[in-house]
Amino acid sequence: MTASGRLGPGKEFDAVRELLEGWGDRAAHAGDDAAVVDFPANQRMVVSTDVSNENVHFRREWLSPEEIGWRATVAALSDLAAMAAKPIGLVSAMTVPASWRDVLGGIGEGIGKASSAFECPILGGDLSSGTELSIAVTVIGSTSNAIMRKGARAGDVLWVTGMLGAPGEAVRAWNGGKPPLPRARARFAHPMARIREARWLADNGCTAAIDISDGLVADARHIAAASAMTLTVVLDAIPCFDDVTPRDAAASGEEYELLVAGPINLNVEDFAREFGITLTRVGEVSTGPPHVTVIHGGKRVEFGGGYDHFSR
Amino acid sequence: MTASGRLGPGKEFDAVRELLEGWGDRAAHAGDDAAVVDFPANQRMVVSTDVSNENVHFRREWLSPEEIGWRATVAALSDLAAMAAKPIGLVSAMTVPASWRDVLGGIGEGIGKASSAFECPILGGDLSSGTELSIAVTVIGSTSNAIMRKGARAGDVLWVTGMLGAPGEAVRAWNGGKPPLPRARARFAHPMARIREARWLADNGCTAAIDISDGLVADARHIAAASAMTLTVVLDAIPCFDDVTPRDAAASGEEYELLVAGPINLNVEDFAREFGITLTRVGEVSTGPPHVTVIHGGKRVEFGGGYDHFSR
Repeated sequence: MTASGRLGPGKEFDAVRELLEGWGDRAAHAGDDAAVVDFPANQRMVVSTDVSNENVHFRREWLSPEEIGWRATVAALSDLAAMAAKPIGLVSAMTVPASWRDVLGGIGEGIGKASSAFECPILGGDLSSGTELSIAVTVIGSTSNAIMRKGARAGDVLWVTGMLGAPGEAVRAWNGGKPPLPRARARFAHPMARIREARWLADNGCTAAIDISDGLVADARHIAAASAMTLTVVLDAIPCFDDVTPRDAAASGEEYELLVAGPINLNVEDFAREFGITLTRVGEVSTGPPHVTVIHGGKRVEFGGGYDHFSR
Repeated sequence: MTASGRLGPGKEFDAVRELLEGWGDRAAHAGDDAAVVDFPANQRMVVSTDVSNENVHFRREWLSPEEIGWRATVAALSDLAAMAAKPIGLVSAMTVPASWRDVLGGIGEGIGKASSAFECPILGGDLSSGTELSIAVTVIGSTSNAIMRKGARAGDVLWVTGMLGAPGEAVRAWNGGKPPLPRARARFAHPMARIREARWLADNGCTAAIDISDGLVADARHIAAASAMTLTVVLDAIPCFDDVTPRDAAASGEEYELLVAGPINLNVEDFAREFGITLTRVGEVSTGPPHVTVIHGGKRVEFGGGYDHFSR
């Protein structure tokens, strides 16, 4: 029997049924009080949760329902990437106001597409009414060699995947009342979780990683704190999209690219060939107080904080 | 280093730090992009998520912050109980409006107490701003013999743990503008997840289980649908608190007691001795269409639906 066939009657369960039917085999384990799945032998479990809220992480007029579902799912999967873990499954707890109910199928489609793209089955979820759309996605993965924030060593180099700045550029455009450039919008609406890239980085000796959700410099501070090392970030080295300054790129949150500490001799050509994105050296790790030194034009510069949900 | 010492600066991280410090060893694995924990060999993984929203699942004036945290956590853990799984860990994704920030520590304390009571470490979480308090708790457990909803067999008897009706009674009192009786309030504010009880039931041959979150009859319908069996529920047999009618008790949601199908000869005295609560026979399973027949005073009666988040 399919997961959806195992549910009782009611409008809420009709909505669940519709989601499950859209997800098909991707949600084969859902539909009981909890999902039961096999865990790979000799691996450790990796778990993270990430909440995406209307009017906090996005505005309704910015994104399609499918993009909202995709983005919420990828934001969570990105935390598995930051540990170099392979996805096992996800659950989504959604608060769905009445005004969103007719597009719940579209949100589900975005979740389903991310489930397919990153080979992460949908294990279950929970639906509730409420006043603003909220999607809390929890992801579970497995790994035998996790990369933690605490592993950076003196002499490591800092690497970043992909190009930065576009999500911040899109948000600035929207906040300024203008439609963002298509490329900036696409990066905000359709981020990628660097799952496979992270496995490559782990296999090639990288020692610490974080996904850039609050901005490169703000997230570098977490590696510095966890590793008890001084990190130096060279703004001029940051791979930026056109019309984004290095400073804006370094402050741009919700990138879902990876900032990684690792050996100096990574084969960036191999990486680019395999994944179709760049791997760029942006700084270094050295002995010293847990701190991030930011260099711009050869000079040390001040740099503010990242996005802080509780700052206002 | 403690989990909280590995975080960078900022008000949001200060709040995370405060939560982590309150949780202490219970959150020893938190603080990276994701938690990394060992998974027991030769067990299957059990996963569920549960969202508790202000003004949907509770009202601010009904509960203390600690009770809100406890209740949200137990609601999720109860789904592990319904599968007879042992907890491995939990993550909490919280939307915290400004008006709730000063009592976030109390909510965290409730989550922490549930973590201790049910031996379920806190693996991580996510905080966001928003307009209404929302707590999405995801729990992960393990088991070698899960009880699913689909396992009920003809000839099984239906059993229910504990006494029903008090949470519904509390909500009716609040909605009527009166304070509920202390006992009814306590059952709403401080439910228990029947984790150990479920292990006993699995070990004693029970075949199907569900936790009563939508009301006994509504949840029985899920077992009927999943098992493709007719279930008969005898209202007169339901163990109710005083001043609760059997009909109200059978419709009372958020009980977090277990409805179980299993052998007729369970030793209810042993069960009561070991867990300090009753185990009561309330019906039976028979071959027939997936349906719940409700009997009251020896007659078949009509019975409405359970709580439906999308019904209004």
